[in-house]
Amino acid sequence: MVILGAGFGGLEAARALARAPVEITLVDRQNHHLFQPLLYQVATAALSPGDIAWPVRTVFRRQRNLTVVMAEATGVDTAARVVRAGDGLAIPYDALLLATGATHSYFGHDEWAPVAPGLKTIEDATDIRRRLLLAFERAEVTADEAERRRLLTFVVVGAGPTGVELAGAMVELARHAMPREFRRIDPAMARVVLIEAGPRVLPSFPEELAAVAHGSLERMGVQVLTNTRVTHCGPDGVECGAERIGASTIVWAAGVVASPAGAWINAERDRQGRIPVGPDLTVPGHPDIFAVGDLVTAKDGSGRPVPGTAPGAKQMGRYVGRVLAARAAGRPAPAPFSYRHHGDLATIGRRSAVVELGKIRLTGFVGWVFWCVAHIWYLVGFRSRVVVSFEWLWSYLTFQRGARLITGREPRGGNATPVPGQVRAESRQQEPERALGPA
Amino acid sequence: MVILGAGFGGLEAARALARAPVEITLVDRQNHHLFQPLLYQVATAALSPGDIAWPVRTVFRRQRNLTVVMAEATGVDTAARVVRAGDGLAIPYDALLLATGATHSYFGHDEWAPVAPGLKTIEDATDIRRRLLLAFERAEVTADEAERRRLLTFVVVGAGPTGVELAGAMVELARHAMPREFRRIDPAMARVVLIEAGPRVLPSFPEELAAVAHGSLERMGVQVLTNTRVTHCGPDGVECGAERIGASTIVWAAGVVASPAGAWINAERDRQGRIPVGPDLTVPGHPDIFAVGDLVTAKDGSGRPVPGTAPGAKQMGRYVGRVLAARAAGRPAPAPFSYRHHGDLATIGRRSAVVELGKIRLTGFVGWVFWCVAHIWYLVGFRSRVVVSFEWLWSYLTFQRGARLITGREPRGGNATPVPGQVRAESRQQEPERALGPA
Repeated sequence: MVILGAGFGGLEAARALARAPVEITLVDRQNHHLFQPLLYQVATAALSPGDIAWPVRTVFRRQRNLTVVMAEATGVDTAARVVRAGDGLAIPYDALLLATGATHSYFGHDEWAPVAPGLKTIEDATDIRRRLLLAFERAEVTADEAERRRLLTFVVVGAGPTGVELAGAMVELARHAMPREFRRIDPAMARVVLIEAGPRVLPSFPEELAAVAHGSLERMGVQVLTNTRVTHCGPDGVECGAERIGASTIVWAAGVVASPAGAWINAERDRQGRIPVGPDLTVPGHPDIFAVGDLVTAKDGSGRPVPGTAPGAKQMGRYVGRVLAARAAGRPAPAPFSYRHHGDLATIGRRSAVVELGKIRLTGFVGWVFWCVAHIWYLVGFRSRVVVSFEWLWSYLTFQRGARLITGREPRGGNATPVPGQVRAESRQQEPERALGPA
Repeated sequence: MVILGAGFGGLEAARALARAPVEITLVDRQNHHLFQPLLYQVATAALSPGDIAWPVRTVFRRQRNLTVVMAEATGVDTAARVVRAGDGLAIPYDALLLATGATHSYFGHDEWAPVAPGLKTIEDATDIRRRLLLAFERAEVTADEAERRRLLTFVVVGAGPTGVELAGAMVELARHAMPREFRRIDPAMARVVLIEAGPRVLPSFPEELAAVAHGSLERMGVQVLTNTRVTHCGPDGVECGAERIGASTIVWAAGVVASPAGAWINAERDRQGRIPVGPDLTVPGHPDIFAVGDLVTAKDGSGRPVPGTAPGAKQMGRYVGRVLAARAAGRPAPAPFSYRHHGDLATIGRRSAVVELGKIRLTGFVGWVFWCVAHIWYLVGFRSRVVVSFEWLWSYLTFQRGARLITGREPRGGNATPVPGQVRAESRQQEPERALGPA
């Protein structure tokens, strides 16, 4: 069989088939599995990319019935039963699992992508990290007070778990990790604005916990704007109707759209491109094609929708593995997929988190400790568990960040240049040179 | 005063002035100090970038007489006593230290740069890491035996310490970190070729130790070609006169050329662009401009040239700090600069190194342990010492590599596209599609 995508869903399906008499080809365009729930920590310089990503080959090196292929799938020929991928590859399948996930959606405004990157890949995270850290560097040398305010304003669009965690981590970066390091600016005067179109933060959480999170964010210094819709993103900042917020750095955490795998097989899709799968997670009309994770909308045994979270994807992947193992062994198919909800967690910076575990609800420091333990538990390898634990303990004790590197090159030229400094360079055409002495 | 460059020389000068009554502006185009001697370990996926680089601001956060400016210096106006930098900055100085280092030189063949990157920055290292790891990925899926051989051939040009350490680490990556993870290829069949124009490896080391290193490299499986000059580098590999070596990945560790700082001040320069500085490390004719590190040629008190190594740069930087501290305090200038040679080290992969400490010479495992301890000792922060120690212990015990990520985007289009797959894509125009089943 062929699995497209080495995210949570694809990985769990492959693992569930470890002892089954099937040959698996696992295809991903990256060489690594990414622990996405902690990606915002890479974007805010708390962890290094290597701490939350592992080569897929290493994960499966002992599973001899699995072959990893690093290639970008480009289509599926359901008649020929072949997956097409970059470099002219054609990978035949008997059963196929689509686990290609989702990417961010700009609701028809793809032109906002260069100025308001989303957070889905390691490259996204190091790109956001570069923008954030460069904004402080540029604020330190600018002579223009208004420009400095703009440089030190960071906007996060979308207050789901990613947006909330990002906004919290940004405030902490500014208030705790940076001070004493600059001579002209006080990084703590950075302004973080979290903008949400809906009526409250964390829409998928119980209202009571969302209110706690809202309060924590405001106490930390995040400006939370609910019922506010972004109408324009540009290099100068965002507009929400008549209101303009000058900002150097915008992160898009608002909408997702499924990867194009549904279109490849001409499946029915909802407005976000997601495939409504059947109770056995097959694609209607394709008994040998399964789909899981953010690519699908699935209903639980009891009719409730399965959430688009890591546990949702993992449970679906594991279920598909069980179905295929049963088929290979000639056993009857297992009962329809049922999702078990263990809970929801979101952290709001240092020492604060909201946790919902059915009837148990944890907030504040207790919630935060639970959050840390749960995340370290789910990190894939022993090595990363140790390194991440150490990094967190270290930053907890010292307030320092271990990964504050500005790396990569800035894009140059054209309107694909979302660099914070661009506007300054233009606005300085009247002001040819600026003396800079010691602070 | 102004210091250009936060490498070993600039950092030591700034530190030596910590208690002096001077205001220091430290300018670097990066936000981090890089521990260059371990950069080859990032290129070969043993360490993460964050393990060997630290924000310059963090290093100096307690030194209140120092201001860090992240900007790219573009020139020096010696008449106006001003450093010009990107974004229209003008930074006035009374005393100036040029510590801008060197970059690699292609001996007039800059067109080789896209196919044969050098190793000077974090971006260089992650670029080389991507090429190396992608070559294995592509070898795994190619159907063409000759192409597979080309993909698994890695060439290092230049057998100084960087070239030797890189070649050794590449062989280890292939032989020890990769096996059991691929299904179609045996990564251990990768071929690493180390090409040196001179008569022996490690020209700066005593002949006896160079011979030991040569033997170790060959025993590990590196093919060492001395007295061999590269006459062409291209996307297919290298040519050495009539001999062609097909290779997917070429790393340039052959020549260096000083940064353009010497030209900014119209100083005398040798063929590599280096400034011959006086016995007090000032630039002749500019009593207030000092220069140190790879940017200069300096003679020791006893007339011997100071080597272009980290200890050389650090000792020069510290000396300039002492000269300026004396000037500020109205004390007489210290005695002319004298270089103290502590020794030379190079590692040749796991459990083997050559160490020269005056009369003491260590090789093999003892040399390697000494090398590990010395490098961990010199790493800047406590945090990195702990993380690097852990990563090394971990890979020593498990043979695994902690940082095997393919990140960043490949350059696209034009002849600036040195990607290993390019040739394959062309050669497959007759061969429209290739089936790939499980191995």
